[in-house]
Amino acid sequence: MSTHGADLQLSPPTDTLSSVGEVEALKRIFPRLPASSGALLGPGDDAAVVAAPDARFVVTTDMMIHGPDFRLAWSTPHDLGWKAAITNLADVAAMGAVPSALVVAIAAPLDTPVATLEGIADGLRDACAAHAPGTGVVGGDLSVSNTLTLAVTAFGSLEGRKPVVRSGAAVGDTVAVAGELGRAGAGIWLLFAEGTSVLPTRPDKTAAPASEQLPEPEGQPDAELGRKLREQHPELVEAQLAPTSPLDAGRRAGTAGATAMLDVSDGLILDAGRIALASGVSIEFLHDAIEAEAESLRALDPVVGAQARDFVLCGGEDHAMLATFSSGAALPEGFRMIGVVTERAPGHPLVTVGGEAYVRPGGWDPFSDWNGATG
Amino acid sequence: MSTHGADLQLSPPTDTLSSVGEVEALKRIFPRLPASSGALLGPGDDAAVVAAPDARFVVTTDMMIHGPDFRLAWSTPHDLGWKAAITNLADVAAMGAVPSALVVAIAAPLDTPVATLEGIADGLRDACAAHAPGTGVVGGDLSVSNTLTLAVTAFGSLEGRKPVVRSGAAVGDTVAVAGELGRAGAGIWLLFAEGTSVLPTRPDKTAAPASEQLPEPEGQPDAELGRKLREQHPELVEAQLAPTSPLDAGRRAGTAGATAMLDVSDGLILDAGRIALASGVSIEFLHDAIEAEAESLRALDPVVGAQARDFVLCGGEDHAMLATFSSGAALPEGFRMIGVVTERAPGHPLVTVGGEAYVRPGGWDPFSDWNGATG
Repeated sequence: MSTHGADLQLSPPTDTLSSVGEVEALKRIFPRLPASSGALLGPGDDAAVVAAPDARFVVTTDMMIHGPDFRLAWSTPHDLGWKAAITNLADVAAMGAVPSALVVAIAAPLDTPVATLEGIADGLRDACAAHAPGTGVVGGDLSVSNTLTLAVTAFGSLEGRKPVVRSGAAVGDTVAVAGELGRAGAGIWLLFAEGTSVLPTRPDKTAAPASEQLPEPEGQPDAELGRKLREQHPELVEAQLAPTSPLDAGRRAGTAGATAMLDVSDGLILDAGRIALASGVSIEFLHDAIEAEAESLRALDPVVGAQARDFVLCGGEDHAMLATFSSGAALPEGFRMIGVVTERAPGHPLVTVGGEAYVRPGGWDPFSDWNGATG
Repeated sequence: MSTHGADLQLSPPTDTLSSVGEVEALKRIFPRLPASSGALLGPGDDAAVVAAPDARFVVTTDMMIHGPDFRLAWSTPHDLGWKAAITNLADVAAMGAVPSALVVAIAAPLDTPVATLEGIADGLRDACAAHAPGTGVVGGDLSVSNTLTLAVTAFGSLEGRKPVVRSGAAVGDTVAVAGELGRAGAGIWLLFAEGTSVLPTRPDKTAAPASEQLPEPEGQPDAELGRKLREQHPELVEAQLAPTSPLDAGRRAGTAGATAMLDVSDGLILDAGRIALASGVSIEFLHDAIEAEAESLRALDPVVGAQARDFVLCGGEDHAMLATFSSGAALPEGFRMIGVVTERAPGHPLVTVGGEAYVRPGGWDPFSDWNGATG
């Protein structure tokens, strides 16, 4: 594990982007960033040069924006850098590739403490060191914006293998998952339910059974309440704010000949539907397997209660690897079977659970419902 | 020249990101984007796969943010896509590489018309078709933000050549430039001087000679005034809002063995200083060559007047290729000699013009002075 930059002090909070200037800010951020073992030419020129040993490279890009994607009241700067790295590296791994490098563009308000940017750099470094050693930042950009924004582009190498795309699942394949399900979704539910300073309300006329009463997207994210929740429910809240992803399982699935794969970003049902749609098949999750996932989430933290199954099936941002394998094949290390690929008959749903179509309980989604005025 | 997507209608202005939703917006933007001939796997999966024929790839990233980097009052959506493509491709070309692909992340307010996003896509497509045919968009991300933001990452191939870095200039080398100097700087000066709705003022006590009286960073960018300026001074205003860059000159310089190169983003003096600093040399611009550049800018548009020389030396964003070549070498097509590389004696400036250190006249810089409250 790289300790490059790990012992550097943070700048005092009075040093801001505008008070020290861009050049000095970059000078302080730079030594904290992880180096890439694949960089043939690193940062500092018009562009970097990165090795692509099998004459191809995998590339994905994703932005994180203050408001819809994170709240500074709940996420530390270290969380932001960590999450930006992991979410992008998970997309690389979901192709069956091994991460190699990142470029990172950050835009921040002028009054942003330099220590915030340093914390983001530390999070990038620590996520790479912990989950993708050798992967580093080969280039970047620092700009001014009224809205704190991170744009990360991640690269990887297929090491000569075929990319594992979404469209290769075949009838009879085994559906398997590596990593956790439902934790990050339960984490964001907890933060909105109990981490905001105005208590959520729901008009009686739309009252749902108690287990389905999700909070309204109201209230202001509260730093102190968020900290408390993180202490009380570390597994759930950390899965949301500083997620991990079984990146190496992606490579193992590629090596084992997975027929299709993606990382679970928007929930198991929705993401399985993407594989089913692209492959022209249906995906049937096994009742017992999903119950076991729900039971395991409930055992981890009883606060999820009767909603455990919904978090498992609908919770996003866990970045588990969801893959299909030919029925005869042994599952690679870290994968557990949770379903099978079936024929898609006319009118048949893309995804079923225990043979039934799954209907998500009424509720709100803090992301799709975000309106730019709150948080 | 690709006409892919070129005949698609824009959506009606009443269709916004929030009224049609992300999925539908992407569906409309997608067919307008340029395809990449180097894409082994295009958009639509967790990540794309791009060819890297010589087992390396060149990568650079740059954000454009509403406020510091552009104003919607002056730039059309097509301008934004065009400029985002060109500025990034120029960084690829400045390594001596040939552009191959882009990934594009856009974050926009919910009330953004879909037609704005379509216009950005059209600008990306038309810039690639005009200046880097075969280069296309292999992936992207669409998010919600209070601040319209474009983050582009561009890729290129060195075709087996060494990258042309900033640190290779040697004493005796010829300094040469391909492309235009001073136009984009004069364009932004014009826009701030005459394209804002409040006329700039300068207190008498700081009055400089007339030729140096640059406007204050005051006033609101005005769409109608901007349109008028673009009609009256098309070369200067378009160089700022929809720049071109001699991308192919970058490859030619690489092939011809340029010893150092960058694209002029922040002004000739400042960027030459970067080569000089990295190479441990000084750069001497020839008096007559700079006068000829200034004269040519004045001939193009007399509005630049006595400031022509300052625009040539300090104007940024022209994305000309500034390169050094061994003294015996023939300059590649499109390059003209403007200086020589000299020894850096102790206390000697990094860059001189006609043997003298250049001191920039007092003035403001709309970018470094941008404070987030205006525009």
